[in-house]
Amino acid sequence: MTIFSRIAAGEIPSYKIAEDDKHYAFLDISPVNEGHTLVIPKKETDYLFDLPPQELAEMTLFAQRVAKAIDKAIPCRRVAVLVLGLEVPHAHIHLVPISGEADIFRREKLKFSENEFENTAAKIRDAMTD
Amino acid sequence: MTIFSRIAAGEIPSYKIAEDDKHYAFLDISPVNEGHTLVIPKKETDYLFDLPPQELAEMTLFAQRVAKAIDKAIPCRRVAVLVLGLEVPHAHIHLVPISGEADIFRREKLKFSENEFENTAAKIRDAMTD
Repeated sequence: MTIFSRIAAGEIPSYKIAEDDKHYAFLDISPVNEGHTLVIPKKETDYLFDLPPQELAEMTLFAQRVAKAIDKAIPCRRVAVLVLGLEVPHAHIHLVPISGEADIFRREKLKFSENEFENTAAKIRDAMTD
Repeated sequence: MTIFSRIAAGEIPSYKIAEDDKHYAFLDISPVNEGHTLVIPKKETDYLFDLPPQELAEMTLFAQRVAKAIDKAIPCRRVAVLVLGLEVPHAHIHLVPISGEADIFRREKLKFSENEFENTAAKIRDAMTD
């Protein structure tokens, strides 16, 4: 089981943003900006583009709903998308609210307290429309 | 008309990778790595997540086919995905073959000759399966 499967299953705690039967979204605990969220499929798939087309389309639409909530909840110009696929062998999409390129190319991760993470997650959850 | 609409319409030349009735893919001429490709919808939409869900799903599946061709044609560990949406007001997905994080976080763009760009585009086009 990957660390992300254990997070989606609730075995490892996370700041949950949204969930449906096939997907889970939660705050990245090493964020490059406030509201930096990871979207994963519950099915373990190493690499995003290895998902069957239908599943990739569904995951993209789930990510779109999460991105719209981040955009409402966190002041930003855009919600950027980043997929690298180098570290955790479980496909994931980074959604990062940005005001400029520097926000996503920042190499030093930000630190937030548990309370700050929980407040951020609550703001985004409240902005989810379904 | 955005610069990307003019590229898709053939008014501005590009190193074309693939095209269908709704999408166009071409090499980024300021690439961060060989094979760095942009995927755009032909319909002008400022921001990726403003596309209606069905159109976003179709664009993602077009990008998946292009990413698989890049992965076959260009030696790399992954084809990374990046969407910023800050500069050109026409939604676009960056597909970048990477061997490590440094390849996508590189700030200095690479320079290739016309001939090198054309060879790269031909390799990726040849790897497209449909």
